Amino acid sequence: MTFTTPVEDRYFEDYIPGTVHEFGSITVEEAEIISFAQRFDPQPFHTDPVAARKSVFGGLIASGWHTASLTMRLLVDHYISHVASLGSPGLDELRWLKPVRPGDTLSVRVTLLETQRSSSKPDQGFIRGLTEVLNQHGEVVMTMKSGGFVRCRETDASTAMIGNHV
Amino acid sequence: MTFTTPVEDRYFEDYIPGTVHEFGSITVEEAEIISFAQRFDPQPFHTDPVAARKSVFGGLIASGWHTASLTMRLLVDHYISHVASLGSPGLDELRWLKPVRPGDTLSVRVTLLETQRSSSKPDQGFIRGLTEVLNQHGEVVMTMKSGGFVRCRETDASTAMIGNHV
Repeated sequence: MTFTTPVEDRYFEDYIPGTVHEFGSITVEEAEIISFAQRFDPQPFHTDPVAARKSVFGGLIASGWHTASLTMRLLVDHYISHVASLGSPGLDELRWLKPVRPGDTLSVRVTLLETQRSSSKPDQGFIRGLTEVLNQHGEVVMTMKSGGFVRCRETDASTAMIGNHV
Repeated sequence: MTFTTPVEDRYFEDYIPGTVHEFGSITVEEAEIISFAQRFDPQPFHTDPVAARKSVFGGLIASGWHTASLTMRLLVDHYISHVASLGSPGLDELRWLKPVRPGDTLSVRVTLLETQRSSSKPDQGFIRGLTEVLNQHGEVVMTMKSGGFVRCRETDASTAMIGNHV
């Protein structure tokens, strides 16, 4: 299923509950696995191919935070509105289900679980989705439920400026 | 409260439910906010100081994934065992509560919620904690509940090699 509007012109009204969207392709490079982990998650199974071979994972795997960050890149490129996104309050049930290894190619499937127009801030709504991250074999390597605030296309101009939030 | 064992020699038995641990200090640099976001979360309020000023956030803020990754660095440096960690299956209730801005200094408070020795894998257990991330004003900017598998110090040698998992 595809959106009827491009990500550069997508508003709250364009996110339809129950729709499923598949998109993106990003390859996980060994050099980036190591450099990401050296800065953010310096555990040997993320930073040292030799030590990783002797670990429970049997070889180098990406930090779960690296996988999540690559997923975010695909979401920003293809799913999250470039003009109406107002940020996210957080996420639930993030699961790292399978190792992500050098050379893997990841893509994303988002199922839109619910959308709710704000009653207090009539210029925006909240959308919530299940994100599944797949590798090149079609295996789900990560899932999470997350949501975000999105500006509405149809906005009452008199209230549009008071909808700010953190 | 402090651990009785250093992070280089910490096993499942050293994680005591109910204990609270505060540690770490990491400063969030504007250049890294921008470079992280250019790769992983290229939304204008993370990548462009001028555009960010006109956004709902009133200025540049770190990607939530950047904040989470910096948090992971503090956890690896001070909390997660360097010898007994077997990875994490995921996390729950991650919340980005306040913006993280250039120059902020983050620290971490972990409350150990529960620990459970595995019945099927006698060489390991599972620990679960609430992580709160604080800025230099003592404000909680992020929280999450997460867990991980940890090898036990006291292990039955005959079973120690069959405890591998993903």
